[in-house]
Amino acid sequence: MNSSMKKTTLAVIFTILPVTFIFADTSGGSTADLMWITWIGSIAALLFALFLAISVLRKDPGNDTMIEISKAIQEGAIAYLKQQYKVVAIFFVFLFILLALISYVFKLLSPFVPFAFITGGFFSGLAGFIGMSIATRANARTAHASEKTLNSGLRVAFSSGTVMGMVVVGLGLLDLSIWWTLLRYVFLPMGLIGKVEEIPPIMITFGMGASSMALFARLGGGIFTKAADVGADLVGKVEAGIPEDDPRNPATIADNVGDNVGDVAGMGADLYESYVGSIIATMALGSIASLALPNVSAIQAIQIPVSIATIGVISSIIGTAFVRAKGDVSQKVLLSALRRGVYISTALIAILSFLLIYFTAGISFLGIWGAMIVGLIAGNIIGFSTEYFTSDNYRPTQELATETKTGPATVIIGGIALGMASTLIPVITIALATLFAFFLSGGASHPGIGLYGIGMSAVGMLSTLGITLATDAYGPVADNAGGIAEMANLDPVVRERTDALDALGNTTAATGKGFAIGSAALTALALLAEYGNKIVEGLQHLDVSSSFQKFYSGLLTITTNTATQVKEVTLTINLLNPLILVGLFIGGALPFVFSSMSMKAVGRAAGEMVEEVRRQFREKKGILQGTEKPDYASCVAISTKGAQREMVLPSLLAIIAPVTVGILLGPLTVIALLAGALASGFVLAIMMANSGGAWDNAKKFIEKGNLGGKGSDSHKAGVVGDTVGDPFKDTSGPSLNILLKLMSMVSIVFVTSFIALNNLILKLFGG
Amino acid sequence: MNSSMKKTTLAVIFTILPVTFIFADTSGGSTADLMWITWIGSIAALLFALFLAISVLRKDPGNDTMIEISKAIQEGAIAYLKQQYKVVAIFFVFLFILLALISYVFKLLSPFVPFAFITGGFFSGLAGFIGMSIATRANARTAHASEKTLNSGLRVAFSSGTVMGMVVVGLGLLDLSIWWTLLRYVFLPMGLIGKVEEIPPIMITFGMGASSMALFARLGGGIFTKAADVGADLVGKVEAGIPEDDPRNPATIADNVGDNVGDVAGMGADLYESYVGSIIATMALGSIASLALPNVSAIQAIQIPVSIATIGVISSIIGTAFVRAKGDVSQKVLLSALRRGVYISTALIAILSFLLIYFTAGISFLGIWGAMIVGLIAGNIIGFSTEYFTSDNYRPTQELATETKTGPATVIIGGIALGMASTLIPVITIALATLFAFFLSGGASHPGIGLYGIGMSAVGMLSTLGITLATDAYGPVADNAGGIAEMANLDPVVRERTDALDALGNTTAATGKGFAIGSAALTALALLAEYGNKIVEGLQHLDVSSSFQKFYSGLLTITTNTATQVKEVTLTINLLNPLILVGLFIGGALPFVFSSMSMKAVGRAAGEMVEEVRRQFREKKGILQGTEKPDYASCVAISTKGAQREMVLPSLLAIIAPVTVGILLGPLTVIALLAGALASGFVLAIMMANSGGAWDNAKKFIEKGNLGGKGSDSHKAGVVGDTVGDPFKDTSGPSLNILLKLMSMVSIVFVTSFIALNNLILKLFGG
Repeated sequence: MNSSMKKTTLAVIFTILPVTFIFADTSGGSTADLMWITWIGSIAALLFALFLAISVLRKDPGNDTMIEISKAIQEGAIAYLKQQYKVVAIFFVFLFILLALISYVFKLLSPFVPFAFITGGFFSGLAGFIGMSIATRANARTAHASEKTLNSGLRVAFSSGTVMGMVVVGLGLLDLSIWWTLLRYVFLPMGLIGKVEEIPPIMITFGMGASSMALFARLGGGIFTKAADVGADLVGKVEAGIPEDDPRNPATIADNVGDNVGDVAGMGADLYESYVGSIIATMALGSIASLALPNVSAIQAIQIPVSIATIGVISSIIGTAFVRAKGDVSQKVLLSALRRGVYISTALIAILSFLLIYFTAGISFLGIWGAMIVGLIAGNIIGFSTEYFTSDNYRPTQELATETKTGPATVIIGGIALGMASTLIPVITIALATLFAFFLSGGASHPGIGLYGIGMSAVGMLSTLGITLATDAYGPVADNAGGIAEMANLDPVVRERTDALDALGNTTAATGKGFAIGSAALTALALLAEYGNKIVEGLQHLDVSSSFQKFYSGLLTITTNTATQVKEVTLTINLLNPLILVGLFIGGALPFVFSSMSMKAVGRAAGEMVEEVRRQFREKKGILQGTEKPDYASCVAISTKGAQREMVLPSLLAIIAPVTVGILLGPLTVIALLAGALASGFVLAIMMANSGGAWDNAKKFIEKGNLGGKGSDSHKAGVVGDTVGDPFKDTSGPSLNILLKLMSMVSIVFVTSFIALNNLILKLFGG
Repeated sequence: MNSSMKKTTLAVIFTILPVTFIFADTSGGSTADLMWITWIGSIAALLFALFLAISVLRKDPGNDTMIEISKAIQEGAIAYLKQQYKVVAIFFVFLFILLALISYVFKLLSPFVPFAFITGGFFSGLAGFIGMSIATRANARTAHASEKTLNSGLRVAFSSGTVMGMVVVGLGLLDLSIWWTLLRYVFLPMGLIGKVEEIPPIMITFGMGASSMALFARLGGGIFTKAADVGADLVGKVEAGIPEDDPRNPATIADNVGDNVGDVAGMGADLYESYVGSIIATMALGSIASLALPNVSAIQAIQIPVSIATIGVISSIIGTAFVRAKGDVSQKVLLSALRRGVYISTALIAILSFLLIYFTAGISFLGIWGAMIVGLIAGNIIGFSTEYFTSDNYRPTQELATETKTGPATVIIGGIALGMASTLIPVITIALATLFAFFLSGGASHPGIGLYGIGMSAVGMLSTLGITLATDAYGPVADNAGGIAEMANLDPVVRERTDALDALGNTTAATGKGFAIGSAALTALALLAEYGNKIVEGLQHLDVSSSFQKFYSGLLTITTNTATQVKEVTLTINLLNPLILVGLFIGGALPFVFSSMSMKAVGRAAGEMVEEVRRQFREKKGILQGTEKPDYASCVAISTKGAQREMVLPSLLAIIAPVTVGILLGPLTVIALLAGALASGFVLAIMMANSGGAWDNAKKFIEKGNLGGKGSDSHKAGVVGDTVGDPFKDTSGPSLNILLKLMSMVSIVFVTSFIALNNLILKLFGG
């Protein structure tokens, strides 16, 4: 295994070095800056990605037809992304101006906020773009490699997935390093920032930028891919009776483009957002946590999450080197190869992070390590639960498949019931993880540390992202490779192999989804806590009227210490206060309203695609006979237009809802709104993801020849379930995770505006 | 209109009297007992129900076939209820013993609690039973009357609905009167109760009994009716191709029995629970509210909600006298007749309750009247919203119907999206109603009064129940009448008329649903507040360890006033505490898990019914030719057995979930659990009700001849939507409303056990 040995060597060079340096800094409680390690981690990840990308591009892309198809997919995907970035740019410019106004005219925000916002969006988009660029080039190469063996197909696809994983974590750490370095070493000395503790809150704004971009990417990509998918399936498969990925289907290229813009670019932006979000939320909670621990400086508490993330990157690089198998091996062997990589990375992270925390922050901080491990374990439990409920190896999905016997209605009811039942384990897991993280890290005596511990469990859960994302992101590449194999009329064994890779990807993706969902909940909790801190801070700096104080008297006390003249603010977000109850109610409804908007968006865009495909079949009779070439580009254009038009409104909800409530019902009601949205949104997201996944696999289970197989009535009912599940699992569900965090970040960024405007309103009404 | 004049005369006799007496007691701040008015109101309602029942039974039940069919339905329904009561009896005996143990052995509850629990269950079941008895007798009579005119059909059906309405409110007030009289005039003087303020909390236990019974009735009835419905439709309509309600269908009697046990008996028990629940929750909050108002005695604050309810009963009786139309009139005229009755009752309630509050509690309490009016208005807004989203007169359902053109998948996605979107208006309405009720009644300075105001808005919303339930409950009677018309081969014009009545019922039922859902949310909020009070009370009376106090230090302070030696307990249910966040998460998942269980239950029971109907068609070839009689009874038996078996597990969740969390994570986490369940459950309940309603009406819209009409592909897709919607709207959705309240009541009743056991656990672990 020559190339694998090369990888290992490279990995060792990139890792031994920084790991050694970590332990050089053993001065407990010091203010030494470890961010240079993050620079190295970031560059290591990006170089490793570059190295793998080159190795993928060196592979043979196959025959001319395959190259042509791959090109068409590439061009469609790039055309789509260009269009998406144009729409998103308008949004970003608008928000940049708004933030600049608030910063420079009303002086309610740090002057760096507008710029941080832009860079977050930029890097998130870039992560998706690079991942997609390599994925659209790896698809034909994977198909070609699969002509040899299953193993060689996996190697190309997995390398492409690893590029995505490394780009996401590498760019995440890069953005963090750049801003940290700029703020600490340029703007702090210039006096533009008062102290180190002010840095993380500024960085939350780039989290907001990243989340905004991710929401657009997930929604836009999700709408695109599902519109194309539904259009291709409903008219091509059902009405015209031609197989999936048949070149005669005008929507087939759009369908394959959709896999890339949705499952690859969308997922990349999404996980960039999750990764960065969990780190900066925890960094922001760090400075308050450090107050309670004598041996830990603020700078250490701020940097530990990002250092852990760096260790995770290095461990992931090492882990990928162990994903290897010799020659022509079975699917099972490959699965254990993938799992070996993940487990080795996980073990490395556990050990290295223990050492890091022990040597830098000392023994008193080891509870934080425990919180991190809790996160890692919780992520795995949720992943297993996802797999259990959605894989056709287990009873729930098998039973769902048998419900197709009584038609589409029963399979729909069954799928929804399955998704709802599947929420219990993840919710209890997150509940226990939250409690363990809080109490292990010392929250019983110092709540600030406990909340920081909750953030650390999210960081821990995502610390393996470099490799788990790799095992997740290669799935769509294999899927695309299958499409190309079909369209290019390759030997059926190739399709079988790519299908096997795809199935393998589904299994590992289940774990990935578990991590994404679990970390979203924990990060959102951390952000909620940080929002509470920001309200206190905001009220310390802004003067509010007596009507404001009276109106919120049950929730808030503001006193001035007569000795020190310092304003002291105490929040007691009393759940029994009607403002809080009302916030919970409104928050609880938001995920439903958001999902409704995104599902309707898919429906409308899909309707247009159906009309277009029908039109082409009607007007060009030669298409179905194979004598005339369908107009692929018009289908891509229709999906693109539909996605752009439809993604805007639901995205705006993430901003409009907290801002409206914040201004009208005050910043405190917003806490409840966020908590309510989290309580219902987390559950709804799991339900949608798992219902969708189970329908998908129930259909595939039938297609394997069970219950009458393809073409049977059971299969038709299964297809209905799968079609309903598509927007559930690929559009609304994953977008919800982003929505929950984005709303929190928006609230954090706009908290001073809430206070100022709500105070104004109450002054006007209350005199 | 001879009979109508009789009614009016009767109504006047029953009402002028008590209303006059009300104003006799004008001593502000007095401790005079107004409960005798409630006795009169209760007896008036029951006598009025009896009078109407007799008048319905005097009508001609039609020809022999009709009598025979009606008998079969009656017998099936009674057989079902008997079976249900047997299962429920086991549950009640078990809980009675448990409560008795806690009361008599551990002395943690009042000795009256076990008995109150039993009576609540008894009366709730009785309300459903009586309503169903009359409905199963009114069905053939309605069919026969519809042979004359639409109007005469309505008169019979509406009278039967009014019996149900009056029985529900009459029995509700009766149970309240009995317990009040016993506790105040027998046990208080005997010294078994310390003071008047202790009475309402005991009465909450009969609320718990009523809610338990209602949950069983809704779930059991819902499972029965949907199993029969799906079985009849899937095999009869779809597979065998025979029309709905065809006598050759073995499940057709079960289907009609189902309408009675689900939509009538289930709804009766459900609304009994809602009605009584809102009143006692508010009574319980009354004593704390009175502390803050110098002119209002505890007894007045406790009795105002029940007096308002009594006024509502009287106004409803008067209102029903105005539901009349002469001769052969159109559907539109009848609708306005129904609406006139409701509006007159509403206006009367508004005026009379103003006078009641003004003359008894005085001007300082008028904000409470405002809160009540807010509830009435909010109920109407939610009702209109429900109608807008689910009636085929408006765009949402019409658009949903057009989505059937692209098959079942799109109509399912569209219906779910519609249901999700429809949650926004009710949630905002309830949010505003909560805030208005709280602040209008004076919550800004005295939170206790504000919470009482929230309860009063629920009482206000349900004060018209006597008549709104009448306009709701006649729908199933008309539906059944249509079935009998079909089975007895009456002139098709009869079926047309009963269908028109049914459609009319759908419109008025939408408003009824709005009231049920809205009041559930407000009542649950009131119960949440009361649970908070009970925690404080429990901690004042029970001694807890220092580990307990330390563990909950962020949420709870217990101090002993050194001067008075009184234990002072302060709760601050801080939303940012991890125990509270965890409670929210778990609570947020419960409605999903519950819905999953109830939907799966329907699926399993329906599966058995499908097999049975198929078996009969297979084994008795003569059935489809009309030469052999199908075995109706076996289908009824299968639905009965299925419902009994399946209703138990989800019902237990309502008890197990809060009790487990209360013992393991303490009584404070339970507050968050209840709030989280409310935030997600309220929204989920609306979504399920409205998705289901819209699918039902979209199908009917197609059956009217739109989009290809009956038998078209659109119609087939519409039937799939309707079938999915059935368990949504008739099983899971309405049960959720009960679940939310029952969990709160369970928590209130078991709060002392939570404290004692959780304290024990923390002592064991914390030393």
